[in-house]
Amino acid sequence: MTRVGILNVTGYAGSELARLLHAHPDVKLTAVTGRSAAGKRLPEVFPHLWQLDMPITESLDDASVDVVVSALPHGAAAAQLLPYIEGGVPVIDLSADFRLKRVDQYEHYYGVTHPAPQLLAGAVFGMPELHRSEIVGAKLIAAPGCHSTGVILALAPAFAAGLIERAVIADTKTGLSGAGRALGLNVHFSEADENVAPYGLDGHRHLPEMTQELGALAEAPAPEITFVPHYIPMTRGILSTCYARPAGRLAGMLPTEARIALMRAYLEFYENAPFVRVSGTAPSTKHVAGTNFAVVHPSVNLGTGRVVVACAIDNLGKGAAGAAVQCLNVMLGLPETAGLQQTALFP
Amino acid sequence: MTRVGILNVTGYAGSELARLLHAHPDVKLTAVTGRSAAGKRLPEVFPHLWQLDMPITESLDDASVDVVVSALPHGAAAAQLLPYIEGGVPVIDLSADFRLKRVDQYEHYYGVTHPAPQLLAGAVFGMPELHRSEIVGAKLIAAPGCHSTGVILALAPAFAAGLIERAVIADTKTGLSGAGRALGLNVHFSEADENVAPYGLDGHRHLPEMTQELGALAEAPAPEITFVPHYIPMTRGILSTCYARPAGRLAGMLPTEARIALMRAYLEFYENAPFVRVSGTAPSTKHVAGTNFAVVHPSVNLGTGRVVVACAIDNLGKGAAGAAVQCLNVMLGLPETAGLQQTALFP
Amino acid sequence: MTRVGILNVTGYAGSELARLLHAHPDVKLTAVTGRSAAGKRLPEVFPHLWQLDMPITESLDDASVDVVVSALPHGAAAAQLLPYIEGGVPVIDLSADFRLKRVDQYEHYYGVTHPAPQLLAGAVFGMPELHRSEIVGAKLIAAPGCHSTGVILALAPAFAAGLIERAVIADTKTGLSGAGRALGLNVHFSEADENVAPYGLDGHRHLPEMTQELGALAEAPAPEITFVPHYIPMTRGILSTCYARPAGRLAGMLPTEARIALMRAYLEFYENAPFVRVSGTAPSTKHVAGTNFAVVHPSVNLGTGRVVVACAIDNLGKGAAGAAVQCLNVMLGLPETAGLQQTALFP
Amino acid sequence: MTRVGILNVTGYAGSELARLLHAHPDVKLTAVTGRSAAGKRLPEVFPHLWQLDMPITESLDDASVDVVVSALPHGAAAAQLLPYIEGGVPVIDLSADFRLKRVDQYEHYYGVTHPAPQLLAGAVFGMPELHRSEIVGAKLIAAPGCHSTGVILALAPAFAAGLIERAVIADTKTGLSGAGRALGLNVHFSEADENVAPYGLDGHRHLPEMTQELGALAEAPAPEITFVPHYIPMTRGILSTCYARPAGRLAGMLPTEARIALMRAYLEFYENAPFVRVSGTAPSTKHVAGTNFAVVHPSVNLGTGRVVVACAIDNLGKGAAGAAVQCLNVMLGLPETAGLQQTALFP
Repeated sequence: MTRVGILNVTGYAGSELARLLHAHPDVKLTAVTGRSAAGKRLPEVFPHLWQLDMPITESLDDASVDVVVSALPHGAAAAQLLPYIEGGVPVIDLSADFRLKRVDQYEHYYGVTHPAPQLLAGAVFGMPELHRSEIVGAKLIAAPGCHSTGVILALAPAFAAGLIERAVIADTKTGLSGAGRALGLNVHFSEADENVAPYGLDGHRHLPEMTQELGALAEAPAPEITFVPHYIPMTRGILSTCYARPAGRLAGMLPTEARIALMRAYLEFYENAPFVRVSGTAPSTKHVAGTNFAVVHPSVNLGTGRVVVACAIDNLGKGAAGAAVQCLNVMLGLPETAGLQQTALFP
Repeated sequence: MTRVGILNVTGYAGSELARLLHAHPDVKLTAVTGRSAAGKRLPEVFPHLWQLDMPITESLDDASVDVVVSALPHGAAAAQLLPYIEGGVPVIDLSADFRLKRVDQYEHYYGVTHPAPQLLAGAVFGMPELHRSEIVGAKLIAAPGCHSTGVILALAPAFAAGLIERAVIADTKTGLSGAGRALGLNVHFSEADENVAPYGLDGHRHLPEMTQELGALAEAPAPEITFVPHYIPMTRGILSTCYARPAGRLAGMLPTEARIALMRAYLEFYENAPFVRVSGTAPSTKHVAGTNFAVVHPSVNLGTGRVVVACAIDNLGKGAAGAAVQCLNVMLGLPETAGLQQTALFP
Repeated sequence: MTRVGILNVTGYAGSELARLLHAHPDVKLTAVTGRSAAGKRLPEVFPHLWQLDMPITESLDDASVDVVVSALPHGAAAAQLLPYIEGGVPVIDLSADFRLKRVDQYEHYYGVTHPAPQLLAGAVFGMPELHRSEIVGAKLIAAPGCHSTGVILALAPAFAAGLIERAVIADTKTGLSGAGRALGLNVHFSEADENVAPYGLDGHRHLPEMTQELGALAEAPAPEITFVPHYIPMTRGILSTCYARPAGRLAGMLPTEARIALMRAYLEFYENAPFVRVSGTAPSTKHVAGTNFAVVHPSVNLGTGRVVVACAIDNLGKGAAGAAVQCLNVMLGLPETAGLQQTALFP
Repeated sequence: MTRVGILNVTGYAGSELARLLHAHPDVKLTAVTGRSAAGKRLPEVFPHLWQLDMPITESLDDASVDVVVSALPHGAAAAQLLPYIEGGVPVIDLSADFRLKRVDQYEHYYGVTHPAPQLLAGAVFGMPELHRSEIVGAKLIAAPGCHSTGVILALAPAFAAGLIERAVIADTKTGLSGAGRALGLNVHFSEADENVAPYGLDGHRHLPEMTQELGALAEAPAPEITFVPHYIPMTRGILSTCYARPAGRLAGMLPTEARIALMRAYLEFYENAPFVRVSGTAPSTKHVAGTNFAVVHPSVNLGTGRVVVACAIDNLGKGAAGAAVQCLNVMLGLPETAGLQQTALFP
């Protein structure tokens, strides 16, 4: 039994990690930390976790864990993870601190000086669908942002096969748990209920990681992504709708032919991806609620020939805690789906 | 591996049964039926169940199953279950057909002639918290109604200990999945959203089973329950708030003392009930979403001395499919919690 | 045109007042205050009020207003209203500061010393259905609490006619705007969504005003109210379900007869109440959203004979700002329904 | 007082029309029809309209009305409106029957033979922002579809000024009242709640009217719109997010300059449009709930230079009944805003 500790269990990604690790057959959750909640028991902060009656401590004793999963916010994560990384404890980080290869991009988007830029080169982007072999045995894994997960899964096969032009639109619709447990008028029930609005119109932090990862798949030059996220009145789930002009062999086809060619490329790309379901029909976030699955529906608009790909995930599942557990499995050589085989909670 | 078949998988109780049985370590879901959907695959009706790619048949071959769980509606259930019961196949029925001991009550409340009244005496009310020993090895188990589950769990310890008078109020607030998958303006999103209303003010069908079960615990005469259910704009969960005058030794106590005495009686009553959590604070349905747990909070109003007990369950979990699986476990001699140990999906 | 100023426009009661007064044909909203928002324009705080482009000031110049409506919180309200009251400016207060006749009850429930107890005797409880003649020409009106409004409207006719016993249950279900605009985990979308829970089980502040007002209608002794509010996942609306034993002539009747007698008493009591609709069917909060109407449905349980009365209001309408405008109309001798004749926003 | 009748009052557009016309100072709602509900009173179908206690008839006596507003579905509308049109009664039609100039497009998208194609040339597209002068005194006005309204308002100024290329993306997020009052699993609360999904990926019926109207503004060739609508879990509101490449003088500008130039073009275009608010910040549907307003936010993506315009409307307001009343006002020479000056119901 691999012993796992969670840093900063007190947010939604942290509590979802606790839920998943508690139910995992091959690992044992041995410790959880939380700054302001240190000294409390976990169910005092999350009553729904009464079966995990363990103390929340201020820090992790690295002798008590074999792997650290961090749900610390960016900035704090890199600083607090440094000792573990240097001590050789494998780390999976849910923050943005180790996602970007270019420290200038990190510092531009996050407005902080990176405390350990020397580690960026060795960190692996935690998306097994793109980096499975690098994750095996890795020591530092940076799980992707929730929006990035949906957009990258939606577009990776098309970019990899050269089937779309570089300029793409990514319009995402996310549930409010994506905003975290911190308080604010934007997550006040009375203001968020019955409402939809775009945000981040001046540039969202998940953009550079999308560009980095999709760019690595595409022929140069890098993708040019116009990304607009929207909050919608639900708790879990992200639907990413992506739009691109067809390129390569797709460009000359009739839309009906292009649909088939596109579908083939997606099926092939995700052939060995146990958590990506390529679907012939429009995806619904409710069909993946509580799971680590992504449903990806590639399509071609019959009127305009535009490639349209929709992808549904649970932002706390495949978009956060689920991805971390999937990486943990791959990293440790466990079955990739261990502890992640739940079907969705529906309705 | 016990082989289990589900009759009428096409509603919400049926799909929840499929979800739970699929994840159950000791049983195997081998067949599912559905009248109008016969001939389709299960994921065609419920896309979220793509991992359960099995055919929906018109009927169950009784050679293919060791136990039948029925999610058929009342009336249809008794008629279609008769052959299995007569053939000696153990049956767990989610309908009302075998819940009531008195056929006249059944026929009054449901407006149909009971097709097999001779079976009522032998049927066991499927609430292990009250009937665990009878469920072991039983052949015909009638799982309780969702409202009944909440109200009975809320009041059973108080009635059993003679701590409340017989006239009680049960005010329940239920999510809309309790109305089933059938269409109607009452479950139309635009009309149910942002709305709350009482229903069943002329008498709800779950009342006689509450009276029967609580009456069996209480000294004569039978409880007199004023039961008013309400639909509220959420999908899963029932909160039952029950009110009663203190009786017996509770009647003479100060409210602060009575709170302690009541809590003790509840803790004792549910000492061996793995799915009932007696709580010192107000329960929230969100803390049991997707689980078979009930949270019961017994209290005494400081101003009026009135006993107030609130109980939260997931109406599709402990209120339907979860209870059926719990009964299955007890019936088969499996651990009572097998396949039911998930923590809630929160938030 | 009567000039009206709003104190503390920055909460939900304040913004609803602004909406209603802006549309009122006989009054003019001339000034609004707000502590932290002073110096901003109203639409900066509430973008939906762009048509009311007026400054938020720190205080009201009493030369600029003929009437003051206060949405200040309790404690602050009495202190800040004192100068207006002493200066002879008519005041309608939405806080609890002038609702209770007994200063000891106020200080017990609100935990503060009342700054102007000498004014309590002269304040009028702002429910025209009970105090219309006192409101005409009054100088200090205390609008009722939102829960109190629903419960008092539900029970007043029965108490006034001596048709119910003194011990009653009031179980209310309220939308989350009732918790105000202040931030907290209890109104965090991700935690409030898909959830229902009771609160205030140790005693809610609206209780003494319910007891005071219903007690004034009933023969001695005073009503004994067990009041349990619940938050449900919607923004606006309160449904109050009240339970009582029949008394007086109702006690000896068959339930079917009692229903008719009860209905008659309610129709008579509310004969001249333009905002109370006595209904023969169960009320829905959605049918009064955005309005000052209350729908009251008196009933008698056919099985137990218990009187059950359900009342639906909009907590920000009849439960707060609407009631204030209705009082303003009556106070000023305007038509009672002026500015309040909107039909509900449905669906 | 102009007398107005509503054909087919029994859907959501119909009931919203009734709400608005009832409150309108210059018109009188004199008759309403409804096929299946004929013979009932209006409040029997919509209890929230108890103040409009009028009969629902099977047909309109054309002597009783000066103007007919139809909320009949497409196909039925043209057929039933023919007698009024031929009789010279002015008609405002909410269906698609008279929106498209090209009968072949109508018949392709709606799959029915148009019963009166000779009327198409004379019908006016009911968007005063584009066709105010033609609406004055018109006899047949076709109110736009809800999605079309948002997308056209979002893009009209840019196309009119030649500031965007012809290929655009229109990604809309709509509340479920847009699906109407008809029953279906797609509007079943338990399935629509906590869910988002695209629909109409094979081509949505509102597309040709968007193309027609935007095409009339643009230099040839016609716009090429990739339109993907999404249902999100709320009742009212549509947010339209539109994406286009800059063209003309915008193409050569820096994004920060282009933002200013774009904003100027929008402010100028909507200078005399009382219901369009050009906003410098992202729009929220909740800020227009219950109103006839549109909030349009033109922007330019700082990273990619792409033009991004977001528009928020109430789908039953500016997207349906509100637009009809606005057209009625313009048609009759009343103030354009008569009866439509409500501020939003917030929160």
